[in-house]
Amino acid sequence: MKLAMIGLGKMGLNLTQNLMDHGHEVVAYDVFPSSVKEAEQKGAIPADSLQDVVSKLPTPKVVWVMVPAGEPTDKVVTEISSYLKAGDILMDGGNSNYKDTIRRADKLKEQGIHYLDIGTSGGMEGARNGACTMIGGNEEAFRYVEKLFSNTCVENGYLYTGKPGSGHFLKMVHNGVEYGMMQSIAEGFDILEKSDFNYDYEKVAKVWNNGSVIRSWLMELMEDAFAEDANLDAIKGVMHSSGEGKWTVETALDLQASAPIIALSLMMRYRSLETDTFSGKVVAALRNQFGGHAVESK
Amino acid sequence: MKLAMIGLGKMGLNLTQNLMDHGHEVVAYDVFPSSVKEAEQKGAIPADSLQDVVSKLPTPKVVWVMVPAGEPTDKVVTEISSYLKAGDILMDGGNSNYKDTIRRADKLKEQGIHYLDIGTSGGMEGARNGACTMIGGNEEAFRYVEKLFSNTCVENGYLYTGKPGSGHFLKMVHNGVEYGMMQSIAEGFDILEKSDFNYDYEKVAKVWNNGSVIRSWLMELMEDAFAEDANLDAIKGVMHSSGEGKWTVETALDLQASAPIIALSLMMRYRSLETDTFSGKVVAALRNQFGGHAVESK
Repeated sequence: MKLAMIGLGKMGLNLTQNLMDHGHEVVAYDVFPSSVKEAEQKGAIPADSLQDVVSKLPTPKVVWVMVPAGEPTDKVVTEISSYLKAGDILMDGGNSNYKDTIRRADKLKEQGIHYLDIGTSGGMEGARNGACTMIGGNEEAFRYVEKLFSNTCVENGYLYTGKPGSGHFLKMVHNGVEYGMMQSIAEGFDILEKSDFNYDYEKVAKVWNNGSVIRSWLMELMEDAFAEDANLDAIKGVMHSSGEGKWTVETALDLQASAPIIALSLMMRYRSLETDTFSGKVVAALRNQFGGHAVESK
Repeated sequence: MKLAMIGLGKMGLNLTQNLMDHGHEVVAYDVFPSSVKEAEQKGAIPADSLQDVVSKLPTPKVVWVMVPAGEPTDKVVTEISSYLKAGDILMDGGNSNYKDTIRRADKLKEQGIHYLDIGTSGGMEGARNGACTMIGGNEEAFRYVEKLFSNTCVENGYLYTGKPGSGHFLKMVHNGVEYGMMQSIAEGFDILEKSDFNYDYEKVAKVWNNGSVIRSWLMELMEDAFAEDANLDAIKGVMHSSGEGKWTVETALDLQASAPIIALSLMMRYRSLETDTFSGKVVAALRNQFGGHAVESK
């Protein structure tokens, strides 16, 4: 199949190569000409504008957008959809908020353009050698491009999830689960670190990955991380987040779903961003007020 | 090697078979004669008392205890250690509290008996076909019986963890991590269930197991569970616990380790044991008192 890839960052470029490995022709575009050059060197057909992208595709046109969620995705979707016609297929492989996806799909439906939302997991390595994708949107359109997923995903690694937004929603919840799993693993190692025992964390992660109940890809990544830095001395415990955990918690609130572990995992990330806290000052001040307990001066 | 297995429950019997598969001779004992009979039928040497067990072993005697933690383990350890001599090796494969283990190891050290603590993960299936074990205690004694672990565990599935108690401590923390991972997975599916989308949970678990960041053995078990009962209609959401999560939280408190996700996962289990809660009544009563908000009558 001949299709376009918009956005040649870490995910888009790896996915482009993965697609070409499986015999697909990819028209590649990015706002950075150097990224287009790189894709061209790897065998992609270069394009120098979104209009150029569309002109190089057969009908129905299939466009895979892999740019950051929010503003960048909105911009690309708005412009490129003005060049597309009824029956064309526009796919958003970014981490878009499912509500944005539903809004975009509804709008594009008026033009007859099929908008598929592609929740993508597995990181760069997955994009290159076998990803995991969750696909929402029109089922007929999905069947038309299904080969792209059976080719680029690991075996059993893609799922058509139903109506528009369902793919991004499922990917969002996947990330929420990831937050809780990561925080739980983290607390376990923290307890080991504070204990009187003297564990080799790389070996602990390794034994936990072989036959135990908590064996998982995340624990395999911990094995790699501890192999590189036995006690993680080189890094700070600052936990950034990129939005999907927050959306999962917001969604849980909207649905009145009790999800305290995912919510608290997110809060622990926020806590890690501060070296000192105002809440800590408040509690210290109160203890001092009612009990005369000493406060630590700044 | 010729050794004894005390306790022929789900774990002990499977482990006995696993040991015999690898050419070891096992003297088998349980308080229930029918269990001893069953082990005998599978090829074990039956014993009818702890004294009989010891009389059937060569020196140094190697005894693997696989009985419930607490009272039963204390009883077995106390009695059998009276028949053992300096240089013999006594192994506790149960889920003992590491503090009990340290106490027992210290006491047995006075008699010259080596006490090894064997934290065991992987469930019945693991015990039968390849477990994951974490072993604390005297290193020389461990080396003497190491073959038992290299034979019965999966590849890279055993680790000598250091001083007495370190094996059970590591297994305890493993279970704490398990609590958090399970609760996080659970909350994710709960959000899906409350959403406007219509997911096939077996397929969701399957796609999440193939290429995604949260792929794990626990998610594989969810795939099996949803295959058996698509919406888990047949079971109640009551989450029992067997003590190791509580110990992990108690340990975190003792160590002043901040482990809110593991702690809250435990609290969510406790919450699930009640159909109504006194805390809920308190909040409802207060809302009624200050705001006149309606309460639901019993």
